[in-house]
Amino acid sequence: MIKAAVVGGSGYIGGEIVRLLSRHPRISLEAITSRQLAGQKVADAHPFLRGYVDLTFSESVDGQGLDVVFLATPHGASMNLVPGLMRSGAKVIDLSGDYRLKDPQEYKRWYGHEHTDPENLGRAVYGMNELYWDEIREADLVANPGCYPTCSTLGLAPLFANHLVEGGVIIDAKSGTSGAGAEPTKATHHPNCGASVTPYKVGTHRHTPEIAQNLTRLQGRLAEVVFTPHLIPVVRGMLCTMYLRLNEDLTKQELLGVYTEFFRRKRFVRLTEVPWMQAVVGSNHCDVGLEVVGPRKVVVMSAIDNLVKGGAGQAVQNCNAMFGMPEEMGLDFPGLGV
Amino acid sequence: MIKAAVVGGSGYIGGEIVRLLSRHPRISLEAITSRQLAGQKVADAHPFLRGYVDLTFSESVDGQGLDVVFLATPHGASMNLVPGLMRSGAKVIDLSGDYRLKDPQEYKRWYGHEHTDPENLGRAVYGMNELYWDEIREADLVANPGCYPTCSTLGLAPLFANHLVEGGVIIDAKSGTSGAGAEPTKATHHPNCGASVTPYKVGTHRHTPEIAQNLTRLQGRLAEVVFTPHLIPVVRGMLCTMYLRLNEDLTKQELLGVYTEFFRRKRFVRLTEVPWMQAVVGSNHCDVGLEVVGPRKVVVMSAIDNLVKGGAGQAVQNCNAMFGMPEEMGLDFPGLGV
Amino acid sequence: MIKAAVVGGSGYIGGEIVRLLSRHPRISLEAITSRQLAGQKVADAHPFLRGYVDLTFSESVDGQGLDVVFLATPHGASMNLVPGLMRSGAKVIDLSGDYRLKDPQEYKRWYGHEHTDPENLGRAVYGMNELYWDEIREADLVANPGCYPTCSTLGLAPLFANHLVEGGVIIDAKSGTSGAGAEPTKATHHPNCGASVTPYKVGTHRHTPEIAQNLTRLQGRLAEVVFTPHLIPVVRGMLCTMYLRLNEDLTKQELLGVYTEFFRRKRFVRLTEVPWMQAVVGSNHCDVGLEVVGPRKVVVMSAIDNLVKGGAGQAVQNCNAMFGMPEEMGLDFPGLGV
Amino acid sequence: MIKAAVVGGSGYIGGEIVRLLSRHPRISLEAITSRQLAGQKVADAHPFLRGYVDLTFSESVDGQGLDVVFLATPHGASMNLVPGLMRSGAKVIDLSGDYRLKDPQEYKRWYGHEHTDPENLGRAVYGMNELYWDEIREADLVANPGCYPTCSTLGLAPLFANHLVEGGVIIDAKSGTSGAGAEPTKATHHPNCGASVTPYKVGTHRHTPEIAQNLTRLQGRLAEVVFTPHLIPVVRGMLCTMYLRLNEDLTKQELLGVYTEFFRRKRFVRLTEVPWMQAVVGSNHCDVGLEVVGPRKVVVMSAIDNLVKGGAGQAVQNCNAMFGMPEEMGLDFPGLGV
Repeated sequence: MIKAAVVGGSGYIGGEIVRLLSRHPRISLEAITSRQLAGQKVADAHPFLRGYVDLTFSESVDGQGLDVVFLATPHGASMNLVPGLMRSGAKVIDLSGDYRLKDPQEYKRWYGHEHTDPENLGRAVYGMNELYWDEIREADLVANPGCYPTCSTLGLAPLFANHLVEGGVIIDAKSGTSGAGAEPTKATHHPNCGASVTPYKVGTHRHTPEIAQNLTRLQGRLAEVVFTPHLIPVVRGMLCTMYLRLNEDLTKQELLGVYTEFFRRKRFVRLTEVPWMQAVVGSNHCDVGLEVVGPRKVVVMSAIDNLVKGGAGQAVQNCNAMFGMPEEMGLDFPGLGV
Repeated sequence: MIKAAVVGGSGYIGGEIVRLLSRHPRISLEAITSRQLAGQKVADAHPFLRGYVDLTFSESVDGQGLDVVFLATPHGASMNLVPGLMRSGAKVIDLSGDYRLKDPQEYKRWYGHEHTDPENLGRAVYGMNELYWDEIREADLVANPGCYPTCSTLGLAPLFANHLVEGGVIIDAKSGTSGAGAEPTKATHHPNCGASVTPYKVGTHRHTPEIAQNLTRLQGRLAEVVFTPHLIPVVRGMLCTMYLRLNEDLTKQELLGVYTEFFRRKRFVRLTEVPWMQAVVGSNHCDVGLEVVGPRKVVVMSAIDNLVKGGAGQAVQNCNAMFGMPEEMGLDFPGLGV
Repeated sequence: MIKAAVVGGSGYIGGEIVRLLSRHPRISLEAITSRQLAGQKVADAHPFLRGYVDLTFSESVDGQGLDVVFLATPHGASMNLVPGLMRSGAKVIDLSGDYRLKDPQEYKRWYGHEHTDPENLGRAVYGMNELYWDEIREADLVANPGCYPTCSTLGLAPLFANHLVEGGVIIDAKSGTSGAGAEPTKATHHPNCGASVTPYKVGTHRHTPEIAQNLTRLQGRLAEVVFTPHLIPVVRGMLCTMYLRLNEDLTKQELLGVYTEFFRRKRFVRLTEVPWMQAVVGSNHCDVGLEVVGPRKVVVMSAIDNLVKGGAGQAVQNCNAMFGMPEEMGLDFPGLGV
Repeated sequence: MIKAAVVGGSGYIGGEIVRLLSRHPRISLEAITSRQLAGQKVADAHPFLRGYVDLTFSESVDGQGLDVVFLATPHGASMNLVPGLMRSGAKVIDLSGDYRLKDPQEYKRWYGHEHTDPENLGRAVYGMNELYWDEIREADLVANPGCYPTCSTLGLAPLFANHLVEGGVIIDAKSGTSGAGAEPTKATHHPNCGASVTPYKVGTHRHTPEIAQNLTRLQGRLAEVVFTPHLIPVVRGMLCTMYLRLNEDLTKQELLGVYTEFFRRKRFVRLTEVPWMQAVVGSNHCDVGLEVVGPRKVVVMSAIDNLVKGGAGQAVQNCNAMFGMPEEMGLDFPGLGV
């Protein structure tokens, strides 16, 4: 068994990793940390886990005796933990934004503080599983992608990787409220958001440079991204509606051929007509559809469960890669549908 | 014009009073207070009021030059303000729980601290408008009922006033999240409540003794109440489903006759089959329906908008009574339906 | 009093017109028709109207003795009724799509059948109230705009009217489910839509040519529109997030100046930071905000209540224009907020 | 491998059985029927199953070559299929109401038509798994309980089985809309139910006699049940709030002792404080809590996923019993939490 710990287990992403690992046939969960809740039963903080996890929150872990550590810690906290954990010999999967942007200047610009661990930043592999499986297999440190970058990049990758896009892309994203985390805020107070769709951080969301970096890498030249996230009155689920112009005139059929070829043998990406959010909720799937709506004008739509494929599920999928397991191990179940 | 002020205007109930008064033909809004937001535009805190209210939050009001003050202040705060306001000559409508329970011992038991203004507690008239219009007309101080007591008492009053109930009543209440107020909490964090119905304060909610006091007064002997509130994933609206046993065998038709007679000329209470919450949302109406489900067994259902009839609307209705205006002035509009 | 009738009063838009007219100080509601429900009480079909409307559904009206007829009839049905009603001397406000597209060929292309009343199509005035008040004042027949065209056009008008846009516009729209009408469908079945955001009619929605016609007229040259509507799990409310490129480099401040100037004295359009859907729900307001998110790249956001400003409210506002009343008569109330 | 078929696979319960069986390690799904969709891919009707189920809907199955048939057919249809299937030698798990009420007269009274298969009605074992495991192990025909009876009976069983209840019980139940099935109706049209809680079939729901039968059997004397179901704006999940009087004075602690003892080794029932619906959604768990709210007055609360423990999950659990497998096989995963 692979010995794992989750650091920052009191939040939604932390709880979700625990939920998935509790059923993983080849990973054993050795420790779950939370500074705030140290000493309490994990299942008291996450009542859905009662009967599945008997652990008590620890104060911290140092990596000794562990094969892998999942960091479900806030931006800024992860880069304080990674160097020590790396020295212990454990592999690390970081779910914060600390190791995603390759350029420390970009990091500083979007996250507001210096990057203090540029060495590991250089070593970190970006864990967009469907795109970089081979690199991830060799990695000791994986930067697990953000939820919006996962959903949008998977929807756009076949077009950008095949150099089919002229100009930039507009991404109108809609996220369930669990993406905002476990801390109550004015924005996620039910009376404020329960009967509304609300744009937020228009033009300033930190996932913007991450998406741009992904698309730039795929097409080999700078990709321009306009990205507007919205909070929707749904707990789980994310939909990206994306607008772009092709540099040649392709039919929907031809484009679907490009997608089919690109995602061959990637079982978690499914092509569909219009993606239905509830079809992926509870699963690690990303459902993608597209329409040609005018001459060279394309609308791409992609849907994920923001906590699974957009976080904990992809982290487990990356862990599977890092330890030579099949990608679907512990993740091999469909979404809930209704 | 009647000169009014709202104390505690930053919360949901305060904002709702302002919303209603902004359209009232005979009340002019002179001041709105908020300690936290003093100096800011009211319409910045309540963007739906832009174009309707030009006032800036004041620090406080002392009642001078005012005809009436609406207190949308927390329990405990109102009783510090009432004595001074009463001395100024302004009439007061208090929307907190401070003047609802007639027995100071009950108050202490349920609210956890001594009542410091027993004198005004004795003078306060309970503002259940449909029941006590004549008293309210003469009152200088009105204790505006709680949302749950309003919804449940209106549904039950005809039966208790006519001495038709044997034993107590069970009230299973469902409230929209706006009833919890403007402060973000764990319970109202969308990911926790947006896909659930959750019972809370089972057996311990402060509205229990208020409901019991209402029913006891109506039937002239002690009424036993079991009351379970639930939070539902709806912003506005409240439904009470209530279970009781009659002391004689009456048909649904006979019971509807009792209700029709009881609410004659009370235009805000409407008899219906099964109440539909959306039919009252946005309005001051209470819709009531009932079924006989077994020998002498009755289920009564009542629905209100928790912020209007359950708070601000009833306060305006009480103000109308206190100043000799028709009850529907400023409140004469239907609910939204869909 | 102006004598009005509503044709097609059993649906949501019909019910909403009745709701608004029931409180209008200078319009009296003489008849409400519904073929299906003829002979039944209107308030039985629309329980929120109990106590406000005593009428019974009629089979039909012929315009005799009426000043104005609101047609809340389906596309295709309106153009069978308009010629007769016009001959009776009544003014007509049609809420279907039949008289919106000026080009009968466009109508045929998008609605799938010939336009049978080209004469009145030529006379019909497009009732985008904030843009064409003076024309509407003189009109006998007003084509009331669609909900999406209202929300998007109001958000974009200042930019297109001032010739500030380079290229086309992308409109990502989110609508509450009441926009789909009163007839149950698979798409609006709660289990299918209650925990999802779903794009529909991607590239093929009939409001696309209407929006394009509006923007083309405003800027005086062909406007290209990509429009994707989404169904959101909200009953009322609509948000449009719109993406475009300016043809010169303007700051947010300068753009807000353009908007302020454009909407001077238009009280139902309010400029805000990020529009909050709940601030307009229940009202006739359109709240508009914008951000500059890159060099000449602008995101405009606008929100309305789809049944009020997006339908019945704008129809009443148009009626006010047609009969020389102030635009806000019967519509002068704020949204619900929470 | 156990060879299974699902009859009536196009609905929500049918789809859910398929979803669960698709991951069951010892059951292979041989056929899924739907008269309407015969010849179509199952995954086209249930897009969440894409990649998990390759079958095409069949017209029907006759039981030949099958070990077990799950009937997700409507009331009335099942009893036409059961006799033939039983003769084929296949075991049958019927999820309709046809074999739940032991008394054919009761069946006729509540379902409105004669029972045509009284012979098998006599043989059918009621599949309340936690209560009748030993009988279910021996059964050839299992009547899978209704969702409301499952949720309420599990919450009440320890009290009734221990003869602790005086008088009857009041059950106020709240169900997600998926319980209403896949067919669009007025009641489940999002604009009608998306911002409301609505009581329905007050005093007349068919699950009432089933619950009464369960409690009567447990306590050995007639149990009186008042049952009011409500539709809530949630897709999945059910909560029952239940009110009763004890016949002796027991503390909460003593009652919890009774529950703990009763559910010893029943891993799908978990005792908790106040059940949180989201903690069980997606799982086969039933979470139960209780409060003593007055002298001998108890409120019991229980929560399930209406499609899993309230339908498909319990059916699989029953199948596990019938074929000598551990109860949790294929069901051994926690709920989603947020």
